[in-house]
Amino acid sequence: MSLKLEDNEVDIVVAALRPNLNTFLEEWRSFFSNFHLIIVKDPNLEEDLQIPPGFDHQVYTKSDMDRVLNGASINFSGHSCRYFGYLISRKKYIISIDDDCLPARDNSGVIVDAVAQHISNLQTPATPFFFNTLYDPYRQGADFVRGYPFSLRDGVECLLSCGLWLNIADYDAPTQIVKPHERNTRYVDAVMTVPLRAMMPLSGINIGFNREVLGPALVPGLRLDGEGKRRWETIEDIWSGMCAKVICDHLGCGVKSGLPYVWRGVGSDADNAMDSLKKEWEGVKLMEEVVPFFQSVKFPKTAVTAADCVIEISRMARENLASLNPVYAQAADTMEAWVDLWKVAGS
Amino acid sequence: MSLKLEDNEVDIVVAALRPNLNTFLEEWRSFFSNFHLIIVKDPNLEEDLQIPPGFDHQVYTKSDMDRVLNGASINFSGHSCRYFGYLISRKKYIISIDDDCLPARDNSGVIVDAVAQHISNLQTPATPFFFNTLYDPYRQGADFVRGYPFSLRDGVECLLSCGLWLNIADYDAPTQIVKPHERNTRYVDAVMTVPLRAMMPLSGINIGFNREVLGPALVPGLRLDGEGKRRWETIEDIWSGMCAKVICDHLGCGVKSGLPYVWRGVGSDADNAMDSLKKEWEGVKLMEEVVPFFQSVKFPKTAVTAADCVIEISRMARENLASLNPVYAQAADTMEAWVDLWKVAGS
Repeated sequence: MSLKLEDNEVDIVVAALRPNLNTFLEEWRSFFSNFHLIIVKDPNLEEDLQIPPGFDHQVYTKSDMDRVLNGASINFSGHSCRYFGYLISRKKYIISIDDDCLPARDNSGVIVDAVAQHISNLQTPATPFFFNTLYDPYRQGADFVRGYPFSLRDGVECLLSCGLWLNIADYDAPTQIVKPHERNTRYVDAVMTVPLRAMMPLSGINIGFNREVLGPALVPGLRLDGEGKRRWETIEDIWSGMCAKVICDHLGCGVKSGLPYVWRGVGSDADNAMDSLKKEWEGVKLMEEVVPFFQSVKFPKTAVTAADCVIEISRMARENLASLNPVYAQAADTMEAWVDLWKVAGS
Repeated sequence: MSLKLEDNEVDIVVAALRPNLNTFLEEWRSFFSNFHLIIVKDPNLEEDLQIPPGFDHQVYTKSDMDRVLNGASINFSGHSCRYFGYLISRKKYIISIDDDCLPARDNSGVIVDAVAQHISNLQTPATPFFFNTLYDPYRQGADFVRGYPFSLRDGVECLLSCGLWLNIADYDAPTQIVKPHERNTRYVDAVMTVPLRAMMPLSGINIGFNREVLGPALVPGLRLDGEGKRRWETIEDIWSGMCAKVICDHLGCGVKSGLPYVWRGVGSDADNAMDSLKKEWEGVKLMEEVVPFFQSVKFPKTAVTAADCVIEISRMARENLASLNPVYAQAADTMEAWVDLWKVAGS
């Protein structure tokens, strides 16, 4: 990773769903310590946070949220608390990694600097208009394959980098129940651009994005009734990832998936998948409506920013989804309030 | 690879551009020896082929081509000779591997059975309608990621498996000249479906396909004037790959890319990239027309077979490309003649 990086262009956002961040931060110390950390405490968490010394960080709590929200109705509880960090950052890039994830090792046993890899993904171009069978063409030792049009080899700006997970993969509750002992041990040494018009399910566990351009798309819009604290009981990241993907397609920018991996611990999630299953079915059923919806999204030419596009999605959701389930109207409300907040925060 | 495979459903096609196949076949013996080999001798090659004993094989030469062509104008010289093998096979699946490729080793040093991997790719479903960030969901130890719609988890039939290359990657001549010493050493342990509407450049070096359904799409249509014997001096596989991809999209089937790797030797190709450069520019320029052409292809509902679709592409090429360069009219002629031959061969 030989890219020049201005450390002050990056904020690392940590959603604190558990009070003890000692192990998490110690393990990440060598990769995090050059950057400012935005630590957002789940507003439902009562215990004090434990944070080891030596990190340039700021902790945000429920009172900060109340102040910024100023009466607006956005629910930042659970995994959604991270979005508050996205909102109050003023940096160009955000890296966000869950507090149950530790650095992974690559196939040679070398510990992976996930921050550097996300930044590299965001600072090198994406290639959404044509598929390169040799994976990331900008990587050392790789290039475009024979037949790749030269006119497309400059690529376009990459706005979103979706990292992956070793050990505990990000399955839904039904899959987790079917395969309780399955662990992801395969380190796939590749980054690829998700092609134009292809939709993917973003997981918020391990991501990087260009906050300046894409920020408003990362919105805690779609929340399940009775959403829990386990990642598989939530869906807000998948909704925001679909927003981000259709917006990147519209803006002529790219989304990458693949490296970096993080090592995802068993933690509290694995306790009892069966408990989560009742909640999860709602999310599983919603996806059958959400995916066709996003596949049909078309923006007007007047939508030239991510904020414009989020407002459009909110309008379309109200029109095409709201009659199916009240969660969609709620998502539309949240997205509108979110864009308003984003404008205030940016001014 | 635990899939049941009827050996008599597979033909392995070898395009013999060099007379001495001893090393090639000996190295592949343990993986090839259960299958029938169709060895097609480049019609320009004068020396006798050297084939080690112990293979169930049939050699086809210029006189076989003349007999089958029966006056039809299709040029099977050079790399295009392999297509004759596709035409005369009666099997469900074709595996085709170039004679300068040997078995590769995976990250654990285990020799890869490329035939078994291609068959696995073709016999497990493809998922072109939604991107799975965890790569091939049907592989042991993998699955669909959270948020992947359950209604899409059955997948669709995979008709084409595009393998990759270690050591000498499949670059074009300009790239090869810029990076003469670059070797591909990275074994990416993944298979993925190329999403719906995303176009990729097929390399004919290492492929498997369902001949029964997709066969007519693998056509030696677009040939450069003064095409040479080096892979980077040719473009017919890229054209046929684009045909195959738009046809798979139209038929609701899938294309996979990734494993298996083969180890591609330096061989004659690396001798002098500079010599090839003059020829290659024609191909490089053509791609700027070919890619938008295929991106705009839409088939009528009456096109229900690969053969129907090839005829449609030929018609569209005549209408939209032929005025730009005479090679396209030639490609259209070849595709029409090819579909006729395919019908005769199948009857």
